[in-house]
Amino acid sequence: MPQDDDLSSFDAATAVHRAEGGGLLARLDPGWDVGGGILNGGYLLSVVARAAVRESPHAHPVALAAGYLRAPAAGPATLTVQPGPSGRTLAHSLVTLADAGGPALTVQATTATLGSGPSAYSEPMPEVPPVEECVSVAEHRDLAPPGVQVPGLSLQVDTRLDVATAGWAFGRPSGQPVLRAWMRFADGREPDPLALVTFADALPPTSFAMGNLGWAPTVQLQVFVRALPAPGWCLVEARSSEIAGGWVDEDYRIWDSTGRLVAQSRQLARAPR
Amino acid sequence: MPQDDDLSSFDAATAVHRAEGGGLLARLDPGWDVGGGILNGGYLLSVVARAAVRESPHAHPVALAAGYLRAPAAGPATLTVQPGPSGRTLAHSLVTLADAGGPALTVQATTATLGSGPSAYSEPMPEVPPVEECVSVAEHRDLAPPGVQVPGLSLQVDTRLDVATAGWAFGRPSGQPVLRAWMRFADGREPDPLALVTFADALPPTSFAMGNLGWAPTVQLQVFVRALPAPGWCLVEARSSEIAGGWVDEDYRIWDSTGRLVAQSRQLARAPR
Repeated sequence: MPQDDDLSSFDAATAVHRAEGGGLLARLDPGWDVGGGILNGGYLLSVVARAAVRESPHAHPVALAAGYLRAPAAGPATLTVQPGPSGRTLAHSLVTLADAGGPALTVQATTATLGSGPSAYSEPMPEVPPVEECVSVAEHRDLAPPGVQVPGLSLQVDTRLDVATAGWAFGRPSGQPVLRAWMRFADGREPDPLALVTFADALPPTSFAMGNLGWAPTVQLQVFVRALPAPGWCLVEARSSEIAGGWVDEDYRIWDSTGRLVAQSRQLARAPR
Repeated sequence: MPQDDDLSSFDAATAVHRAEGGGLLARLDPGWDVGGGILNGGYLLSVVARAAVRESPHAHPVALAAGYLRAPAAGPATLTVQPGPSGRTLAHSLVTLADAGGPALTVQATTATLGSGPSAYSEPMPEVPPVEECVSVAEHRDLAPPGVQVPGLSLQVDTRLDVATAGWAFGRPSGQPVLRAWMRFADGREPDPLALVTFADALPPTSFAMGNLGWAPTVQLQVFVRALPAPGWCLVEARSSEIAGGWVDEDYRIWDSTGRLVAQSRQLARAPR
């Protein structure tokens, strides 16, 4: 597959091409892993969102609901877009991402055209120290669980943890399943709706803040994109409401550099042991 | 379709039967409407959840993500369950509910077997006045938007609004998109995971609390069931984070009578004008 050197790392890694015969192909990039060769769920969902938008009369993903059936391998993947009802305001489709092993994600995608007009109501951004007072995940290799390489994701997405939620990295977990960080792409690419889909699953598991550094595989993830983000750093917050019976929820809110709520996500994951 | 007189209203209205030829059939009950003959989205999702569980080795719906393609008519509906990967812990499927007009809902369903063991972390229930000090939606016909009949849903689901979030019903909207109510089935049927799926979309739109009494059609709804609920009233809270560009989110949390968080939902809806 041709690589365009002018593309940002994110745009190259999420590129979708028309195959002979009419289907869509992507090449899943091993550099967007969360450790152990497992690709980040938000990254995979951005690839799906790009395919959904490509087959839609509308420009932006506004609601994506993904079932994570199995972890796909890095390398070639096919994207099958089944169009659903489509109108002036929004369009529905069902997108399947598959690798050689079969379907890995099925995603219900709603596309529409987002604006940046004013809100009738908007939840204010929490107060957080400025970026330069936060903790860089990439520069703190000790944030990775023991025996796990620094995830490729943390090299792609510059993630600066609010120190108030970073105690776990220094052996002092807060005991509250809340993480907050400033986020942008390491290569300076500005955020857009596709980027927000990745950011909506790009923090470490909230259970890290409970002192449990195991991975929490996503079972189902829903992302809403609410507005076009302004350039600059986004603030990303994840929190859990209930950890029980081997399950954990993670609830993300993302504000852009102007303090506007631009995306939300919620996932159900298996809780680390 | 035979009606079993011993069934609760909810169990009869969500019953799913095997058709000749192997498919599943339901009869969507016109009594579960939200006004204007539109059936409640949570009720429809309970029908789908029942079909998903019936075709699964697991007993409970734990994660459902529904795309609402169009509003189905009351009457006969077919349910098509495409099984996905299935294991000891959970099983995936894709369920389509269709009426004579075609597909109305596509739902990614994850089933598993829920327990009622202790939580490792649980968000506490907000403080709310007791049921007898709350406002019955069914007894206050003036809660219905002008020209709209009292929704059948509010006769099936006994809904007692916390007065702190019921000002809109008396011409004094709070201006905060938050609603809270005690909820149980009017016929006394106790809550279970299927019931929680209906409760997770059974409050009036949060925009009512902003003084806007128009309907907010659901575009996408995700429900997580987190534990088996105890008998008795559930506390259901809905809040919105962002209302802009014609879209509104609604975030539900449901606690059982013991104060345990037992379900969550999030939906994206079209904001009423």
